[in-house]
Amino acid sequence: MLVLITYDVNTEAPAGRKRLRKVAKRCVDHGQRVQNSVFECLLDAAQYAVLKAELTSLIDPALDSLRFYQLGNNYKSKVEHVGVHPPFEQDGLLLF
Amino acid sequence: MLVLITYDVNTEAPAGRKRLRKVAKRCVDHGQRVQNSVFECLLDAAQYAVLKAELTSLIDPALDSLRFYQLGNNYKSKVEHVGVHPPFEQDGLLLF
Repeated sequence: MLVLITYDVNTEAPAGRKRLRKVAKRCVDHGQRVQNSVFECLLDAAQYAVLKAELTSLIDPALDSLRFYQLGNNYKSKVEHVGVHPPFEQDGLLLF
Repeated sequence: MLVLITYDVNTEAPAGRKRLRKVAKRCVDHGQRVQNSVFECLLDAAQYAVLKAELTSLIDPALDSLRFYQLGNNYKSKVEHVGVHPPFEQDGLLLF
């Protein structure tokens, strides 16, 4: 299934910038960056649970925000893009 | 249906900052800001078409990026939030 991950990490302090790098790195390992803090990940339920736990452990819940949107397996018709940097193919599938 | 709108607007130039304000304002008029550049909007198909066209007209497609994700009507189970600023109720419905 396609899982959309969006995040806002508070980078006012150096610790926040460190968290941001870690969160972004973890997401890059599992999916496709489509915008600055927006990732699209093709994951099964188990992978999703693991990634969600990992990301949750990386943020400061008092300062940062993570959102997960499950778009299921039939996601192609649900995603539209306008403008620069069209999404790359995830696994040979064109995302829109 | 719930439509998720995410955007990256290039703000290197003053014109970009102006575009960003306009895009954000238009989204605020139609939905709930849940993260910096992430909005959740409850729209019917006609409203969605109008908003998409309006936002498309506001950005510079060579510099900026808009993404639309249609989560349908049964979105509650598809959205998860971790951390600060939990989403506010859209229309009396708790989003997670």
